[in-house]
This record gives sequence, structure tokens and C-alpha cells, in this order.
Amino acid sequence: MTTSMREALAVASGPVNLAGYETDARPLAPVKHNRDLTNDAAALTALQEQLWAESTAGKERRVLLVLQGMDTAGKGGITEHVVGMFGPIGVQYTAFKKPTKEESEHDFLWRIRKRLPPPGVIGVFDRSHYEDVLVVRVHDLVPPGEWEARYDVINDFEKELVDTGTTVVKCFVHISYDTQRERLLARLQDPDKHWKFNEGDIAERAYWADYQVAYEAVLERTNTEHAPWYVVPGDHKKYRNWAVGQLLHETLLELDPHYPRPDLDVASLETRLAPPH
Amino acid sequence: MTTSMREALAVASGPVNLAGYETDARPLAPVKHNRDLTNDAAALTALQEQLWAESTAGKERRVLLVLQGMDTAGKGGITEHVVGMFGPIGVQYTAFKKPTKEESEHDFLWRIRKRLPPPGVIGVFDRSHYEDVLVVRVHDLVPPGEWEARYDVINDFEKELVDTGTTVVKCFVHISYDTQRERLLARLQDPDKHWKFNEGDIAERAYWADYQVAYEAVLERTNTEHAPWYVVPGDHKKYRNWAVGQLLHETLLELDPHYPRPDLDVASLETRLAPPH
Repeated sequence: MTTSMREALAVASGPVNLAGYETDARPLAPVKHNRDLTNDAAALTALQEQLWAESTAGKERRVLLVLQGMDTAGKGGITEHVVGMFGPIGVQYTAFKKPTKEESEHDFLWRIRKRLPPPGVIGVFDRSHYEDVLVVRVHDLVPPGEWEARYDVINDFEKELVDTGTTVVKCFVHISYDTQRERLLARLQDPDKHWKFNEGDIAERAYWADYQVAYEAVLERTNTEHAPWYVVPGDHKKYRNWAVGQLLHETLLELDPHYPRPDLDVASLETRLAPPH
Repeated sequence: MTTSMREALAVASGPVNLAGYETDARPLAPVKHNRDLTNDAAALTALQEQLWAESTAGKERRVLLVLQGMDTAGKGGITEHVVGMFGPIGVQYTAFKKPTKEESEHDFLWRIRKRLPPPGVIGVFDRSHYEDVLVVRVHDLVPPGEWEARYDVINDFEKELVDTGTTVVKCFVHISYDTQRERLLARLQDPDKHWKFNEGDIAERAYWADYQVAYEAVLERTNTEHAPWYVVPGDHKKYRNWAVGQLLHETLLELDPHYPRPDLDVASLETRLAPPH
């Protein structure tokens, strides 16, 4: 029996059929305590601080958390509840929206490269370069030959990241069509959430099946050994947050960062700091 | 009797003598409950979310929190405990270190301008353009005529920020010479904190008086109506964090942001979202 979240949420190699991945599953969750699913925030933040601390002594390691999913899947919630545990120092969050005019004039990775985490930092991408084989593919925004070539480009790009010290953690937050409906309805029913509501979101639901196909292609063709995908069941918000927290926890434990131990002459420094007699 | 933190921590106009500002004061703190000083995180984060929400509907308002103070004053602690309440979306943190070669080749505001908060965002500067009239002045890094001219440049720059929608909140975190010694000693005594210890910090203590003079000049010459300074007593960590949280709270209450209320035809949208019969 697996006890690793990374194993539990891994994508099997070969053709991917998202219908086979339950959106309301809760792998590894304690059966009786689903409402109390919380990460060990103290342990997580200590690991993050050590990753950051290491970088001040020249280590190059860093983490990139990629969050993808349909509208309302919970990318913002994960950012708030999971990434929010870490505090602002050593975390860099970027939401990638529809490309600006300037961004469109460059290669699709141009804006991505500008926001890669520096050493010691946990970078968070709320949407990412994967939009360039998702929304772009579903809506024919570029010719098929162009997006078709991007899967390999992405694999090479992520290989380059991994080779230069980045651990890439890619999460597809998987919700059902009904869950999205319920969440959009909930937004409509709360006037304080109307600002999050976009009429286009309803139109986009008509493309649900196309998006599933596009995600299946992503999960099949970019699920590499160096940068694997995790399918995070997203119908239960607490489970979803906990699972992503666990993925980060396992990732940081494996990196095993340590506070640098500079060679300080503590006694001498203490003397220099002593108050004058 | 004042009940506003901004009034309580304001700098009096005219010549500034930092010796007259107690580093262990606790203005407005309830006398008996100093250990329980906590901000209303729920209210603060709701205000921050509304500021962010407004920007998605085109509003331009934003906040810039400038944190200055001697080594160990608590800029990192404020970032962790106060700014950390907000979560990653709508917050942008920047620590300004010794300028890089590229930064040095530009005007001193060049790197600052690149990190100004966009609309809806609370930007946090851990050190700032003020270093260019502090460390630069104390260590004669440029000729006196050059730094001398910067006070007016800074005032004009901040006026420009305010005129384009930024509320600038400038905090000088004020600690005593003894408090710095205690904190540096504490770092020496904890091997997990040695990475934060810089031998240069001890050498820099020899310039304490010069820094106080340089800070006095800052507080006197850049304490403008459009971008006033606050002197935050920093010897008590919990008080310091609470006070900065209150400053932000008062600032956000005054901005009085609201969730945008787009004109949605809720009934019609609900119908479109209804499941097929």
C-alpha cells in the first residue's frame, strides 16, 4: 500500500482517460477525519525557510508549483490555503492571464521564463505555459502544427529547469462538470463574489469535453520522469488543499534543505558584541 | 486622546531627534494585554481582497508599505507576521539588497520603479530607495552633493506615486542599540540562525550614531503630507507587528474598497447553468 501522495496521485503512463480519475476521490486521507485535513504548517514552513536559507549561501535549488485546472477548480484556493502557509519571503506567485499584446509578440515561453523562481524560492504558477496547448488548442488560436510542436518544446524546457536546480511539481486539479456548475451557481448567489463571475465562463463550459481531451493529451505527452504530473481530485476543497500541501511536503523532505552553517567564531563575535565596561 | 495609530506614530514636523522617540514605547496598546496583541486578520484580509477585487474592475488604487530600520529591527518579522496574513494573491514583496552591477549602472530609482505594486496590490519594500540616502550617506558611497539632491527627488517620486493611486505607508522601525546587541547575540547562540549572521553587521554597529543622524535627516526631509513617515517602536516584537498591522488596517479602512458589483442578470445566468432535463 502506497503512503506517498506523489505515488497516489501519479498519472499512469500510456493513454490517459480522465473519466477513469475520480474527481471526488480522497487517496491517503484518513477515512474518519476528512473535515480535519490540515498540513503540518510548522514543518512545511521550516522546510521552506531552510530552502530559502540555503540559497543565501549559494545553493541553486528551487521549486516550481504549476497549478492547472478548469475554471473554479481551486487554483486560487490552493494558493491562499497552501502557498499562503509559507509567508511572502521566498515565495513568488504568478497568475498567467490572456497574453498581453507584448507577450503575444514573443515565443510562448517568453513570459514564463521571466517569472521562473530564483534559487531558494518556491514559484507558483496559477495557469502556465500549459495554456498554450489547452485554451489555444481548444479554440484554434494557432494552427494545429504549431501547438502540436509545443509538447516537445515544453518537455525540453522543463528538462532544462530540472537540470538547473528546479523541482517541478505539476498539479492538474480535477473537478467534475457538476462541481463546476455548483461553484458557478454559488458565485452567482453571493453578490460579494459576482466580481469573480465571468459570463464567458458559462460559454466556456460548452467546450468541457474538448478541454478534457486537451488535458488528456497534456497528461499523456508531458508526464515525464523529470517533471511528472499529479492529478489532484478537486471536488472536496479540504482534501484538495491537503493533498497539494502533502505533495509539497514530500518534495521538500526529499530536497532535505538545511540551514547553512557558516564557520563563525562565536566566542570572538560575542566578545565584540559585549557592552563596553 | 488619539485613537489613530497613524497619529500616534506620526513624526512631528521640524528637526527630528530620534533620542526623543522611545524604542520600547507601546502607544495605543491595551496596558494589560500586551501579550495578546493581534490584529483582526479576518477584517484585514477581507479589505485586502476587496482592494484586489476592485482592480479587476479597473480601479487603480494600491498600497506601498516601505519598511526601513537598522539590522535586526524586524523588517523580516513584520513581513512574516503582518504581510503574511494576506496570502500571495495581491501582495508583492521585494527585498532590496546591495545593488547589482546592472542596478548600479542606472539611476537609483530604476530598480525601485520595476517593483512598484500594480493596481490592487499591496507592495512591500524591505529596504528601499531610502538606502540611497542612508547606507550611501553613512559610507560616502557617492559625493555629498549627489545624495543631498536625492531627498527632493524622493519627495517628487513619491508625489508621483500618490498622484497615480498609490497610498505610501513608510515605517521606520526604531530599536535601541542594546536591543540590536541582544538580537545579534541571540542569532549567535542559535546555530540554526547563524546563516542570518553577517560579520559585517558588527562592523556596521560602529556607525550606529551616523545612521541615527542619517535617519533623522530622512524623517525630517521626506516626511511629506502626501507620504508621511511613522516611527514604529521596535523593541517589543509583538507590539511592533501589531502596530504595523494597525497602520495597514487604518489605511485600508480609509481607502474603503468594495467588491465590484457587475450588472449580472443572475436569473438568466442561473438558467443557463441549470443541468439539462
